[in-house]
Amino acid sequence: MDARVREHAAIIADHSTGIETGDNVVIQLPAAAEDLGVALHEICGDRGANPVYLNYSKRADRAFKRAADEFEEPAHRRALYEETDVFVIARGGANVTEDADVAPETNAAYNRAMEAVKRERLSKTWCLTQFPTAGHAQLAGMSTAAYEDFVWDAVSLDWEAQHAFQAELVSILDDAEEVRIRSGEDTDLTMRVAGNTALNDDGEANLPGGEVFTAPVRDSVEGEVHFDLPLYRYGREIAGVRLRFEDGEVVSHAADRNEELLAGILDTDEGSRYLGELGIGMNRQIDRFTYNMLFDEKMGDTVHMAVGSAYPETVGDDNALNESAEHVDMIVDMSDDSVIEVDGEVVQRDGTFVFEDGF
Amino acid sequence: MDARVREHAAIIADHSTGIETGDNVVIQLPAAAEDLGVALHEICGDRGANPVYLNYSKRADRAFKRAADEFEEPAHRRALYEETDVFVIARGGANVTEDADVAPETNAAYNRAMEAVKRERLSKTWCLTQFPTAGHAQLAGMSTAAYEDFVWDAVSLDWEAQHAFQAELVSILDDAEEVRIRSGEDTDLTMRVAGNTALNDDGEANLPGGEVFTAPVRDSVEGEVHFDLPLYRYGREIAGVRLRFEDGEVVSHAADRNEELLAGILDTDEGSRYLGELGIGMNRQIDRFTYNMLFDEKMGDTVHMAVGSAYPETVGDDNALNESAEHVDMIVDMSDDSVIEVDGEVVQRDGTFVFEDGF
Repeated sequence: MDARVREHAAIIADHSTGIETGDNVVIQLPAAAEDLGVALHEICGDRGANPVYLNYSKRADRAFKRAADEFEEPAHRRALYEETDVFVIARGGANVTEDADVAPETNAAYNRAMEAVKRERLSKTWCLTQFPTAGHAQLAGMSTAAYEDFVWDAVSLDWEAQHAFQAELVSILDDAEEVRIRSGEDTDLTMRVAGNTALNDDGEANLPGGEVFTAPVRDSVEGEVHFDLPLYRYGREIAGVRLRFEDGEVVSHAADRNEELLAGILDTDEGSRYLGELGIGMNRQIDRFTYNMLFDEKMGDTVHMAVGSAYPETVGDDNALNESAEHVDMIVDMSDDSVIEVDGEVVQRDGTFVFEDGF
Repeated sequence: MDARVREHAAIIADHSTGIETGDNVVIQLPAAAEDLGVALHEICGDRGANPVYLNYSKRADRAFKRAADEFEEPAHRRALYEETDVFVIARGGANVTEDADVAPETNAAYNRAMEAVKRERLSKTWCLTQFPTAGHAQLAGMSTAAYEDFVWDAVSLDWEAQHAFQAELVSILDDAEEVRIRSGEDTDLTMRVAGNTALNDDGEANLPGGEVFTAPVRDSVEGEVHFDLPLYRYGREIAGVRLRFEDGEVVSHAADRNEELLAGILDTDEGSRYLGELGIGMNRQIDRFTYNMLFDEKMGDTVHMAVGSAYPETVGDDNALNESAEHVDMIVDMSDDSVIEVDGEVVQRDGTFVFEDGF
């Protein structure tokens, strides 16, 4: 086993989740990530934690979804999650387009049926991470060996230093009333964040981490946004997304590629037409786009917004929590002709923060 | 995907477990068996059943067990099983000796901690089957292709005809008071079966099936037995086992190979020194020994006995149920110089039943 796999497992257990004696742990991995599964089981044994090992198989998921007419909440999965303390989930399928032929409305129906189960999972300590596989390397246009370096370097960042860097933005957003994001000709969006909480993602729920994120006040989003970086979702590329918001709601949408998949996402439920997250990527070590949101959304010089569910811990008691079975992040490149304003003050220009050079 | 994988999945779903709309299904498979997992997920989708896909990884289990000092019952696994209707579990590790370096006392401690969870699982509809892998082919001394034929031919037997054949022995045992098994110089064992129930294994809980099995009355087993066929357990071969019983209990034991592993099994708990099962193999299609108990114990011309837990459905209300965290089957070759007697009447001689040729 590559020594970096054991390091990766140790970071998950120590830094990201803090696995302790007596913890009930669920480890959900694709077949290719068995080494990581072995390393995590070793840690569980060593600490007196109890692992359950789920298979994360897009092939099986695809077969199930395509064959089904309707979906219901699986009581046994819910019971498992209710008794779980820590979830560790890794991406790393052999073929990232494995579910490319599942209909958008099928995914939406499945997600609706699983919404309460997903909420249960997210209420526990969890970590989403990546195992480097040939399929993901191919998507990134990289050799498998270079992609392994990319992933394992990214997860073993100095998270304390990263936390300190991001804390400067958190302190700005803590006192903020309104955020405005402008980029090029096509993006000018304002949203209130007053009363909500900005969180410092330093590699816990996401490994790698490297963003500061909060929730927009649900009905406050106004304007237009052009997500100029593409994303993969349900095994397909969605590119060139444009959304227009009024009173927080998506009132028009377009995409250059797979617009019908985007439409299916927005039609999942009421909440999937509202923003649940605003995130600002601050991880400068992630220096290339790899078509993998877990990494792409953390890149420096980017912001991302998610349609769908908000993280409850980011939403203040006086603000509405946007609930949805969906949560789809999309990215705006902020490296050029772009500013982030907070209450009328510029806090980032063309990717550089005010606390970096003071302008 | 090999068409026989889909046939295998259909037999599991239709014949072995009867998966129906609304069933909560757990599918536990090794990585190599993903095709079978995909086929079972397709069936679950088609029928409106809900799958949870567990990974059956001996590598991970080994790492966990070796690292742990003690074990406790995992509440989340138990919660999952309590809400489950159907379990499908397949063997098919890449390396059948993967757990060869786990200490016998560690396995015993683990099994004790998991005993209630195991009982919960066995109280539901379940099916243990085999996926043909290179590792199991190697253990059998066969090419992988020939082993695939062996496994898939075995699971697709005419189970109705097999049931009818086995029913003749069930009817003899239904009225039986006592069974005596004699083979060669070293095996002469008597046990009461009065009040217990003989079951017809026609490929449901075990696929392939092909035996008739019951429980000895717990304290009634007397005599000596030489299990002249070896077995693999916990990744190691145990060969040439000899046991002597008094009042049902193993009072002396020996083995030509891995005797200390046998001793560890017998020392698991009180119940592991008593027999929980007597089975008579009747599947003549399984015509070779493959070092895999799922197949070996079904061979014609064999009987097997398990130390450890009895199946509750074989034990009458007036008889004690032998409980144990263990259940280890061992086989006697009955093809030569051997008889099975039921209440003094010979029902099998050198592998041939009385209802086959009437002697």
